[in-house]
Amino acid sequence: MLSFSDCHGIIDEQIKLLDIRHKKPTELYAPISYILSLGGKRIRPVMTLMACNLFTGDVRPAVNPALAIEVFHNFTLVHDDIMDNASLRRGKPTVHAKWNNNIAILSGDAMQVYVYQLLVGDNPVFLKTLLDVFNATALEVCEGQQYDMNFSKLPNVTLDDYLQMIELKTSVLLAASLKIGAICGGATDENAQKLYEFGRNLGLAFQIQDDYLDVYGDQDLFGKTLGGDIAENKKTFLLIKALELAKGKAADDLQRAISNQISNSFEKVEVVRGIYDDLNIPQITCDKIAEFSDKAFEYLSAVTIGDSRKSHLSELARGLMVREK
Amino acid sequence: MLSFSDCHGIIDEQIKLLDIRHKKPTELYAPISYILSLGGKRIRPVMTLMACNLFTGDVRPAVNPALAIEVFHNFTLVHDDIMDNASLRRGKPTVHAKWNNNIAILSGDAMQVYVYQLLVGDNPVFLKTLLDVFNATALEVCEGQQYDMNFSKLPNVTLDDYLQMIELKTSVLLAASLKIGAICGGATDENAQKLYEFGRNLGLAFQIQDDYLDVYGDQDLFGKTLGGDIAENKKTFLLIKALELAKGKAADDLQRAISNQISNSFEKVEVVRGIYDDLNIPQITCDKIAEFSDKAFEYLSAVTIGDSRKSHLSELARGLMVREK
Repeated sequence: MLSFSDCHGIIDEQIKLLDIRHKKPTELYAPISYILSLGGKRIRPVMTLMACNLFTGDVRPAVNPALAIEVFHNFTLVHDDIMDNASLRRGKPTVHAKWNNNIAILSGDAMQVYVYQLLVGDNPVFLKTLLDVFNATALEVCEGQQYDMNFSKLPNVTLDDYLQMIELKTSVLLAASLKIGAICGGATDENAQKLYEFGRNLGLAFQIQDDYLDVYGDQDLFGKTLGGDIAENKKTFLLIKALELAKGKAADDLQRAISNQISNSFEKVEVVRGIYDDLNIPQITCDKIAEFSDKAFEYLSAVTIGDSRKSHLSELARGLMVREK
Repeated sequence: MLSFSDCHGIIDEQIKLLDIRHKKPTELYAPISYILSLGGKRIRPVMTLMACNLFTGDVRPAVNPALAIEVFHNFTLVHDDIMDNASLRRGKPTVHAKWNNNIAILSGDAMQVYVYQLLVGDNPVFLKTLLDVFNATALEVCEGQQYDMNFSKLPNVTLDDYLQMIELKTSVLLAASLKIGAICGGATDENAQKLYEFGRNLGLAFQIQDDYLDVYGDQDLFGKTLGGDIAENKKTFLLIKALELAKGKAADDLQRAISNQISNSFEKVEVVRGIYDDLNIPQITCDKIAEFSDKAFEYLSAVTIGDSRKSHLSELARGLMVREK
């Protein structure tokens, strides 16, 4: 069975072999090579290989689809960074910051075509199925990004709307990574779908955990300044839940904080965190994370393959869930 | 045999049936519905249907691929209009002008996925071949757009560079529209490739004609103000050829005009047109158009199908070439 580092090694090696850097025109291809070289954990393509490896010792049929998913993920980062006006990605300049918006738009477009060249590859027997799963997912990711942009301008967002948005924006791609790997490994439809649900629930747990860690994480481990979401009034699981539960003075205080009446952002973070604590938001959030995480592992358990084959995938998923309750 | 208006009718009807307008989120799908509803001549998908119809009476297998090509073409318009900062398209606001850049980027991305959903359709037997032709072409279109952006910033562009750019940016998609139609119609590889070359040469002739008409066209028929390319110093076939041929005073005058030393753009157009006339540029340009156009029709003649079946396609192509010499 392939470990995380085996799979990660395969992906990194294959990305180097794509050798995009020398293609012309340079302005189109250098940004693609650049964003792919920034690294990252390669969680999605690793999961594709691991899902394939559950059902067969030969993961070669999953390699190109895994790369396709990684290129697609990076394409969404390139375009999202333009939309979010973000200047840094993995500690390095974003593509539009390093080159310009037009180059970032166009090289992103070329990446999207490249995704399909990788998916088509040398004509896998399950090509139509792969494309159907991937296309539905890719459209959902676009929908999720649009909902995310819409939400930043709406006064109120319900928790259901929020969960749907994070599901579309992040969970379905994790889910599809696993399902596509399973299909490449010759899994039954039922097992492929269970892995999809494993990934979907894991993605939801992971995203809510990300919201949680932004307020309650260990500064050193989290790697970002805590309270960033609060400072920006980002509609996270915590804020939406707090707005739903707060009554009387807590509701007034919260409204004052998010209507930018506290000019000092350190003070704003303290005030909002205090309200979260009073409303028991940390526990409610951890319960929700645990609910999705538990559901994810139930789906993994239900895959009809010996548990020993699942150990690497299970370990990777547990590693993503740094704070299980 | 299906006429232009039969094919145009099928495409318009099928685009209406896509019923994208009501999908959610509205901000993502309304722009897609909008750009597709702006109409246009639908040359590419009509050519796909006609190319299919050369080989079979049943064009149904070509309908989804034809729509895919039309959606792809419109996707490139949405993103190109952002890059070119264009506010009007077919007399209506461009997507980014009507909504905003982020929505135009994202709805374009969703269109690109939609293209592949249409191509995959209900799993045509020739899926892999279609995807290979389409993917290679789509990447070339991105390369062409990048070269076009590069050229606007370069002091000098050779005629060969220019021809390569217009081939990538516009001709290969026309060529692929025909080849894909032919494949759907069950054509041999040789006939499909001849139709590709017919489209490639026709596209080159058409693009150079577009450059020509911008200076020497009939104002009423052309539909744009004449001399726009000269006013903007756009590197057209005419300007590049003139820069290559001009010596002495003509070279000095041309350099003065394009280094924006003539503030009145009407006067600038007159000066440059005078230099073109002196250098015999109109005739040289028309000869080049005729060269590509003749080559195109040679390829069409070489397709091993009775000439009577080719009449609609031939008529459409001749209609595009409004000024044959």
